[in-house]
Amino acid sequence: MDTKPKTYQDSGVDIEKADRFVGRLKNLATRKGHKELWSGAGGYASVYPVDGNKGIALTTDGVGTKLLLAIEQKKYDTIGIDLVAMCANDLICVGARPQAFLDYYAIGKINDDVSDAIIKGIVEGCDQAGMLLVGGETAEMPDLYSHDHFDLAGFAMGVVQKSELITGDKIKANDLVIGVASSGIHSNGFSLARKLIKDGPMRSELLTPTLIYCKPVVELLDKFHDQLSGIAHITGGGWTNLFRLNKQVSFQIENKISMPKIIDTLASQVDITEMYKTFNMGIGLFVTAQAAIADDIVKVFQNAGFEAATMGEVSESSESESKIEVSGNHKVLLRRHD
Amino acid sequence: MDTKPKTYQDSGVDIEKADRFVGRLKNLATRKGHKELWSGAGGYASVYPVDGNKGIALTTDGVGTKLLLAIEQKKYDTIGIDLVAMCANDLICVGARPQAFLDYYAIGKINDDVSDAIIKGIVEGCDQAGMLLVGGETAEMPDLYSHDHFDLAGFAMGVVQKSELITGDKIKANDLVIGVASSGIHSNGFSLARKLIKDGPMRSELLTPTLIYCKPVVELLDKFHDQLSGIAHITGGGWTNLFRLNKQVSFQIENKISMPKIIDTLASQVDITEMYKTFNMGIGLFVTAQAAIADDIVKVFQNAGFEAATMGEVSESSESESKIEVSGNHKVLLRRHD
Repeated sequence: MDTKPKTYQDSGVDIEKADRFVGRLKNLATRKGHKELWSGAGGYASVYPVDGNKGIALTTDGVGTKLLLAIEQKKYDTIGIDLVAMCANDLICVGARPQAFLDYYAIGKINDDVSDAIIKGIVEGCDQAGMLLVGGETAEMPDLYSHDHFDLAGFAMGVVQKSELITGDKIKANDLVIGVASSGIHSNGFSLARKLIKDGPMRSELLTPTLIYCKPVVELLDKFHDQLSGIAHITGGGWTNLFRLNKQVSFQIENKISMPKIIDTLASQVDITEMYKTFNMGIGLFVTAQAAIADDIVKVFQNAGFEAATMGEVSESSESESKIEVSGNHKVLLRRHD
Repeated sequence: MDTKPKTYQDSGVDIEKADRFVGRLKNLATRKGHKELWSGAGGYASVYPVDGNKGIALTTDGVGTKLLLAIEQKKYDTIGIDLVAMCANDLICVGARPQAFLDYYAIGKINDDVSDAIIKGIVEGCDQAGMLLVGGETAEMPDLYSHDHFDLAGFAMGVVQKSELITGDKIKANDLVIGVASSGIHSNGFSLARKLIKDGPMRSELLTPTLIYCKPVVELLDKFHDQLSGIAHITGGGWTNLFRLNKQVSFQIENKISMPKIIDTLASQVDITEMYKTFNMGIGLFVTAQAAIADDIVKVFQNAGFEAATMGEVSESSESESKIEVSGNHKVLLRRHD
């Protein structure tokens, strides 16, 4: 009998229930002051204005059950990179320049070797993102976390120049879409992936750390901030993250990136549309921009060591018709309102 | 046979080991950029300068095993207040005006009633602190957290005017010490307290939410920022938190606050010096200031509904001789280097 989950929902995570919760949360939390934010809780980062020209971008995230894999494989020195990546890659989507990071590290009992390895990863991630680790909380809670269990949460702060703020509002028909390769499934979809890849060398491949896209994106802000229209970190929800950028557009994208083997392995067991709604499908970051600078953007990423390509374009659309048409490696149609 | 722990260390939390870890962490994480911070990781909050006049204060914290009590008693609507309090009360110690909060909420499975109650508490805490809840992460991790277990971490951001920055450096001999009452043991020392108060009405008293001191402190910043010299949120480490403010002073303090009954109950089972090193002993916040404004400070807290009193003064001291002499309810001598 095959008891393997076929969808993310099957794996025990109830996305719709979580979405309803977030909706109620928003109703409870909304205050007049939220109107002053340059970017709100729906965006990749909240941006709090400190004066007319500068905003403070704030994000928080964890690494999900990727950390259970780190525990299983007793490999602790890269999960901190994932933690920083999940927060910092969100920051840059609003045009923020990452500055400072804080971690929350909860454990049953401090084990020196494990804790040092985790922190080493966090510091490595901060270096890659160009941030300082400025604080943190280490909580020993022997009665909440068993022996070798732990949890990690991260908090990142960046500074946004008003002139460099990116909300997706400026995305227009005929903008081009640049895709930047991921290193694997990064830190999303693990509740499903852990159940589909149960052993063998692919199991340890799952731990490949999330790529951090901050430095090339900061270079883009320096050079092209007027022509950048959107940046999407592809996390939980897969390519449907593109829908967060702008409600009035559709995307036609040819996925021509060389697919990480781990994603092919997962795709052989899961419906392909579900795959695109759950995993990054080889693309960790999408950038949309005016056509004239697409080649330059690709070069900035390539010079920084990332695989990148212009993969598609934007078309006008009503919100109800908004969709992503994927061609290339896979043929998939994602609709905003599915 | 009495197997009750007598010290915080007995309760399963190895403070010295944790301190050594934090020391190694600092060595690993320190970069040139840390020199630019107005307040570093040793202070209550890190302060990142955004321009010559304004800094961004950042803190993170959790609620420790107080949340196990919330779970046990199925009372979820105040633990979020504690979460905000732990972060926001740290922010104000550097002279920051609290602005924005983000939460990380990790659970096995979303239970609508429980999750809504927790968020209600967080929002209530933000309202009390004068902050906006601007973001958060809700992580369903069925294989990490069992059925009704969860964890909470908070991140707070405040804005500090350079002229209002408080580091403790300005504390001088003859400054007076104002104590502001706590509501109980707040969110610290629970690994010990849960083992000493195992049942009865006191067990539920332990859940009394942490007081949030932000609004009166912001009023102090408005009125007296030139004469305020130090603010100490009394958390883990109890009154030894005062040592964080300034290395060249000692404190003589008469603890004349009406002691929360829960603290008396704990004090009947634990050495009194250990009590002062672990719990807040009735004082959630200390403020040091020039003598001329002490009465005014007391009034600001009283008008905001807090019990407060001038309780002591500062004397000059070498670092090696630095101490806190407690009189009044208890006679205790705390030395910096014990």
